[in-house]
Amino acid sequence: VSFLAHLQAVVSQVDGALACSVMGFDGIPVETFQDQAAADLDLGTTWVEYAAVLAQLKNAAPLLKTGGVAEVSINTEKVITVMRLVSPDYFVVLALKPDGNYGKGRYALRIAAPKIRDEL
Amino acid sequence: VSFLAHLQAVVSQVDGALACSVMGFDGIPVETFQDQAAADLDLGTTWVEYAAVLAQLKNAAPLLKTGGVAEVSINTEKVITVMRLVSPDYFVVLALKPDGNYGKGRYALRIAAPKIRDEL
Repeated sequence: VSFLAHLQAVVSQVDGALACSVMGFDGIPVETFQDQAAADLDLGTTWVEYAAVLAQLKNAAPLLKTGGVAEVSINTEKVITVMRLVSPDYFVVLALKPDGNYGKGRYALRIAAPKIRDEL
Repeated sequence: VSFLAHLQAVVSQVDGALACSVMGFDGIPVETFQDQAAADLDLGTTWVEYAAVLAQLKNAAPLLKTGGVAEVSINTEKVITVMRLVSPDYFVVLALKPDGNYGKGRYALRIAAPKIRDEL
């Protein structure tokens, strides 16, 4: 089982992609592919925080009249982050430069999510 | 002071837009424009939950190495929601149909945010 090929495929096909990871809702990555150009970027703290947000939204879903959460994006001045649920226990996260191809990033995660799910 | 014109302008220029609101981080709307076609849609519970998420991210920002959160998007099977910070106390939120024009929605909020801030 190798998630890494899927994660690397996402990063390589999306302009401005920095890193892509499969992680649990505790924010601990199962596997990460980080672009060498982004090696200095410490995404760990941010991802733990974002994972907590995603977990909160997942747990709130039964209360909401707008359906279960499928995708969340959190954008700061420095990094665009797109997350997509893969299974009840895992999600995939993609970090992009602020001028990266956001639409392509969302699309790439949508395509990758079922492939990653099949390998979990 | 009327936010309503700005909110209505956002909804009218974005295909698939359902409602646009200025609200505090407690999830209480200051002003809302909801498309008549979406009058049945109860967004209140969802927005209170999303406001809590946004508040959590705003408070966590000093801890994160990726900068302050400017925009958050939460997408379910039924509704796409884009939120953008307007001031330390308020944000603007746009709800769209799942097939609505997401990119245009983000753009419209980016343009509307400073105009709304000027009126707060």
